[in-house]
Amino acid sequence: MTWKIIEGGIIAPEGFYGTAVKAGIKYQHKYDLAVVVSEVPAAAAGMFTRNVVKAHPLVLTEKHLAAGIAQAVVVNSGNANACMGETGDHAAMQMATVTAHELGIPVEHVVVSSTGVIGQELPLDKVIPGIRQAVQTAEDVRKSMCTETQNDHAERAALAIMTTDTAMKTLAMEMPAGSGTVKLGIMAKGSGMIHPNMGTMLCFITTDAKVEPAVLKKILQDAVDESFNMITVDGDTSTNDMVVIMANAMSEVEFSDDELSAFASMVKASCIEMAKAIARDGEGASKFITVNVTGAGTLADARLIARSVCSSNLVKSAIYGEDANWGRILAAAGYSGAAFTPAKADIYLNGLQVASQGRGLSFCEDEAAALLQNNEITITINLADGAQAATGWGCDLTHKYIDINADYRT
Amino acid sequence: MTWKIIEGGIIAPEGFYGTAVKAGIKYQHKYDLAVVVSEVPAAAAGMFTRNVVKAHPLVLTEKHLAAGIAQAVVVNSGNANACMGETGDHAAMQMATVTAHELGIPVEHVVVSSTGVIGQELPLDKVIPGIRQAVQTAEDVRKSMCTETQNDHAERAALAIMTTDTAMKTLAMEMPAGSGTVKLGIMAKGSGMIHPNMGTMLCFITTDAKVEPAVLKKILQDAVDESFNMITVDGDTSTNDMVVIMANAMSEVEFSDDELSAFASMVKASCIEMAKAIARDGEGASKFITVNVTGAGTLADARLIARSVCSSNLVKSAIYGEDANWGRILAAAGYSGAAFTPAKADIYLNGLQVASQGRGLSFCEDEAAALLQNNEITITINLADGAQAATGWGCDLTHKYIDINADYRT
Repeated sequence: MTWKIIEGGIIAPEGFYGTAVKAGIKYQHKYDLAVVVSEVPAAAAGMFTRNVVKAHPLVLTEKHLAAGIAQAVVVNSGNANACMGETGDHAAMQMATVTAHELGIPVEHVVVSSTGVIGQELPLDKVIPGIRQAVQTAEDVRKSMCTETQNDHAERAALAIMTTDTAMKTLAMEMPAGSGTVKLGIMAKGSGMIHPNMGTMLCFITTDAKVEPAVLKKILQDAVDESFNMITVDGDTSTNDMVVIMANAMSEVEFSDDELSAFASMVKASCIEMAKAIARDGEGASKFITVNVTGAGTLADARLIARSVCSSNLVKSAIYGEDANWGRILAAAGYSGAAFTPAKADIYLNGLQVASQGRGLSFCEDEAAALLQNNEITITINLADGAQAATGWGCDLTHKYIDINADYRT
Repeated sequence: MTWKIIEGGIIAPEGFYGTAVKAGIKYQHKYDLAVVVSEVPAAAAGMFTRNVVKAHPLVLTEKHLAAGIAQAVVVNSGNANACMGETGDHAAMQMATVTAHELGIPVEHVVVSSTGVIGQELPLDKVIPGIRQAVQTAEDVRKSMCTETQNDHAERAALAIMTTDTAMKTLAMEMPAGSGTVKLGIMAKGSGMIHPNMGTMLCFITTDAKVEPAVLKKILQDAVDESFNMITVDGDTSTNDMVVIMANAMSEVEFSDDELSAFASMVKASCIEMAKAIARDGEGASKFITVNVTGAGTLADARLIARSVCSSNLVKSAIYGEDANWGRILAAAGYSGAAFTPAKADIYLNGLQVASQGRGLSFCEDEAAALLQNNEITITINLADGAQAATGWGCDLTHKYIDINADYRT
């Protein structure tokens, strides 16, 4: 049992449709409001920011998903609808209500999400007509959807959730199961990755698999732990972070145990692809960094170290400068909170061993510099302390990051 | 009882002398090796990095200070002597041994410290002659020390511990006590402050007060908690961080309880001045940021929030861009780990209220922009949750930071 990449993006699975419109929330004339709908109520699960400050749509969605059922997602970019008091709660509820009304579904079955600047009032005068137009367009093209049309509308939706992202992040996969196939569509956004606390990360997953809400939640948690949580440190999350999965059972496949676990692997693989795409698209990034930690005593230690190294400003600046400053890598491992023995750690940069048993090797600086000119940098840390491993992803810290974030609001 | 600023820097207190030399460890021709000596053994206490990866001199010094006695500090810049295995342990011990031998004191009474690049071998062929020359020079000028000479040599010592620091950080103070005065000298270095895990922070304090080692340790801990720990998040520290205090009792003042607590306040005040100087001199910084958190439920919560806001890359970038993006401030408070009620928080930028009870106020953007052109930015967050308060310090995140850290080793 294995999966393959297919076309169709977020609306590839049976019974899903959707699109996006240019509602005028973003100051440029860009897609900024998407709807994704299932023809029938779907099992659903979500994971949300651990920030104490939670955006209004997030609070509403968390409540809606408590029952494990959803049928539609409505999401806007250009405004986070966060930190707005009752006005913000009202605006999030309006998004849900209008979407539910247009689709003729219960308001509790609507997932609402927003991303963009915090603390500015959501322009409902643009959002509400936008939702109506998006639902109308989605319904119109739903019946006669050829692959080309489907790709086009899936792409609009993926574009509509972008903020400072420079690349669209979406994918669809299918796997054989029973006498049929099960499909999955995914779209994500997020690029403020200089440090894991930056910028909103959103991800929506659709599937025509038949999975109970409780099982779906477990599958989602495991996938998020190995993907988005390896680019986003727990607790260091934005006000709006959200990952939601909807499974509408329309594939009509009854999973065997093996097939269910293959499905879980497919969900995880899709999330890892999105997480890597987010890290690669880090604000101002010029290099993609992979941190492999091996030989850890525990999985938790391996993950702590991988995340700490990925998110160290000093490591990220050194990679930008193509400087083989491995001492910063070991120091970042050291303050990660993980238990390990520095005197046993080996460090490699794109295959070149730069430290052995916690101390520097005399390597050829020219060779190191040449390796570091690569746009893909892999840092491997072997702790020789056990058998656990983890991988984290990130990007370098560049002048362009400062340009982007010094004046985000205007 | 109050204190005043005096001249004489780190060697202002009775019975302390010292100087620095250009040993050639730094690639430029700059002061890079300092010695500070007490004429008699002094009560001593230290606080050290919590990084699992500890530099070799730090491990040695922690051992030496276990008995609560020290008589000399030897410190070099230009090389951190970290992550070098047995070679590093040997080099640190050599620094202590040579210093002890030159001064005729026990090796256990020597505090050894290093700062600079991690993972390169300490050039003992430069360090050892440097120590000999520094001790010789210090002994020579010790007898006939006029204020001018004293200032000159104190300044050399403060210069010799700098790495990317652009400004020397040193101060001396005195307070009346009993029939005499008690003096304190302090010098510090540290400027990698984009995020608290950056760059080594060193601080040495001398005093002619008579204080038991255990009491001295408590005074130092309290001072560090309100100063260096408010620019340096616990656990997020470099391999070499160290704060050491030596009290040689040569003032011959026996403190009353009130005087002891005035002395503790003076130590704290001196540490706060150094901490602020370090934050102000953050790598590439163009603005100094003060974060006041008031109305917190607990002191721990107030400190968590102050540190989290100070160290948020997004807040720091926004301040650099003179952008009143208060949403990032509230979000950073939100992921700090502190408990508070976002819907009660008020936020002020240089006196201008930008958020009330967790939501944005419509303030004049031009007024905000004008206020943010100031080089001193004060962010005040009133949580209205209790009576505890804390202050943290930091700086903005600029293009120059990237320049400095992209190629630190060469």
